[in-house]
Amino acid sequence: MDRFHAVIPAGGVGTRLWPLSRAGAPKFLHDLTGSGTTLIRSTYERLAPLSGTDVMVVTGEAHREAVVGQIPELGAEDLVLEPSPKDSAAAIGLAAAILHRRDPEIIMGSFAADHVIAPVDDFREAVSEAVAAAAGGKIVTIGITPTHPSTGFGYIRQGEKYHVPGAPNAHEVIEFVEKPDEDMAEKYVASGNYVWNAGMFVAPVALMLKHLAEAEPELHAGLTEIAAAWGTEVQEETLQRVWPQLPKTAIDYAVAEPAAAAGDVAVIPGNFTWDDVGDFAAIARLNPAAQQESMTVLGPEPRVYSEDASGVVVSETKRVVALIGVENIVVVDTEDALLVTTTDHAQSVKKAVEALKEKGDSDVL
Amino acid sequence: MDRFHAVIPAGGVGTRLWPLSRAGAPKFLHDLTGSGTTLIRSTYERLAPLSGTDVMVVTGEAHREAVVGQIPELGAEDLVLEPSPKDSAAAIGLAAAILHRRDPEIIMGSFAADHVIAPVDDFREAVSEAVAAAAGGKIVTIGITPTHPSTGFGYIRQGEKYHVPGAPNAHEVIEFVEKPDEDMAEKYVASGNYVWNAGMFVAPVALMLKHLAEAEPELHAGLTEIAAAWGTEVQEETLQRVWPQLPKTAIDYAVAEPAAAAGDVAVIPGNFTWDDVGDFAAIARLNPAAQQESMTVLGPEPRVYSEDASGVVVSETKRVVALIGVENIVVVDTEDALLVTTTDHAQSVKKAVEALKEKGDSDVL
Repeated sequence: MDRFHAVIPAGGVGTRLWPLSRAGAPKFLHDLTGSGTTLIRSTYERLAPLSGTDVMVVTGEAHREAVVGQIPELGAEDLVLEPSPKDSAAAIGLAAAILHRRDPEIIMGSFAADHVIAPVDDFREAVSEAVAAAAGGKIVTIGITPTHPSTGFGYIRQGEKYHVPGAPNAHEVIEFVEKPDEDMAEKYVASGNYVWNAGMFVAPVALMLKHLAEAEPELHAGLTEIAAAWGTEVQEETLQRVWPQLPKTAIDYAVAEPAAAAGDVAVIPGNFTWDDVGDFAAIARLNPAAQQESMTVLGPEPRVYSEDASGVVVSETKRVVALIGVENIVVVDTEDALLVTTTDHAQSVKKAVEALKEKGDSDVL
Repeated sequence: MDRFHAVIPAGGVGTRLWPLSRAGAPKFLHDLTGSGTTLIRSTYERLAPLSGTDVMVVTGEAHREAVVGQIPELGAEDLVLEPSPKDSAAAIGLAAAILHRRDPEIIMGSFAADHVIAPVDDFREAVSEAVAAAAGGKIVTIGITPTHPSTGFGYIRQGEKYHVPGAPNAHEVIEFVEKPDEDMAEKYVASGNYVWNAGMFVAPVALMLKHLAEAEPELHAGLTEIAAAWGTEVQEETLQRVWPQLPKTAIDYAVAEPAAAAGDVAVIPGNFTWDDVGDFAAIARLNPAAQQESMTVLGPEPRVYSEDASGVVVSETKRVVALIGVENIVVVDTEDALLVTTTDHAQSVKKAVEALKEKGDSDVL
């Protein structure tokens, strides 16, 4: 575990959680579980006991202040600010390149800033196994044992056991597969050979960069140039010059899938519960303590009255919200925007946000 | 028609239209039909061609400024301000008593400030008939020919034809009956002998006061005392002293029902459409022009986005309102309160307002 350095890519607005999440206040800066802490703070606290002060955050320049406010423990050298969003391969790749220059023996572990995990001890145990497996020379993903045939997640197909000290549950990965339709999802789950892809990667930085160089040489070259300038006088100049030119792609395509095809990926099945808080239906699920009769009520000072109603209310204003005779309703009340939908339509919020952008309502996005 | 003096009792908050209607901004001060004029202004304009300047408004002291703003034509002697709400018998009775002192031959016609009627010509014709019938010595109500077996209105049972010059459609009234259940409503409508009670009364003021004196002697005595002081130096003193002691009852119980039992009531069936805008389902019905695809959208500057949604949105704020996958929804968005319900539950809003009052949320009522 001495080699372990946690990386938290904090990007992504969480469009399906609009109008709560938005460009200026993305999902990871919210407390969506009623825990009293933001998702990024919870992510940090989940990792710190494993990595000590070795935690790096990669986020947008606009979120510098908010992130430092949430994680004052963060060292200046461990706050990486992207000039613009460039998807996960650039974010995680830059972290790998910077860490590699610091110490080529580092095993990095990348965990999204906006997921919810419990119990934390089971998660930490899986990470420890993943680090052990990574030390054996693999890119290791932590998959989630499916609880139902979800069509909302990608899946990971496991192969043979991967025998390596300290990782008794590790398996080879045969392939990563895209979000399936319902029939396929049922087959995956019934087979027992598939776990959910939770986007968690633990890997020697050298191995990450090797695969990145093979699959995305241009991206790798750019990141290497930025990393070489990191901490020097030309850091900012180099970043501002090189970053805008980098190709935009996901770590799955740039590293995970080609590495799996090359036999270089292992998986640790995680038996903890995991939620990517993908929409407001998840918010209802994740806040059992906020139930007021059949409503889940969230917000700093909610004034909610409900009668024959169920669902979720997120009240960010001081307004009285009265709900009568609406089932599985989702009401999100913010200063400048109001969403009314149902838990069944929670996934459609993204489409609405795109339509609002086209209509010219970007001031509330 | 020379004897005719219109009276507009403008009381009642319209609780079922909360949070649009509320104590400070009751229903009659809103434009609920997209006509560009408030309900009370429309009521005035409907009556003025019949009565000329002979229009009296009875309303709460708090609404003086708003009412004068809406009806600048109103003479000072025709604006009657109630120190507190005392229900319809006191309001209409005071108008009758004041008018009786002005001229005992006056035929008053009382029409609520917050109803919607079309076409106006048919209404005016019915009022003319009612005035003729009233001149024959009756309290005359204008009933509405039912279009469906509503359980939301009281009914009037008609008897024999009432033969009087100028009122060919007048019938005797056998009785007023309360809001029926569904079975009963269907029987009423099928019989052809029942019309809806729209609360419109046209009557010689002397006859109104005679029945009021018989059924509610205390109320009659108080109103007579106030009317005697009206326009004199002791008007305010008398009003403030006597009014709070007056019994609180509806004109239906105090006058209409006992007068019907005495054979003193006639009815003119009105073939115009009439709506008391009782709830937000009515708002949807009454605003065909505000349809945006399947939504009815009202408000000064609505910014509404809807997808797979139907129903009504009233947007009093500048917020973006996004509706996704909600059918027959009612969303009323005001600065300090938000209502989310369905057109089917529109009648339950009153109950919610009562519950909010009990909870201590009166600041938004």
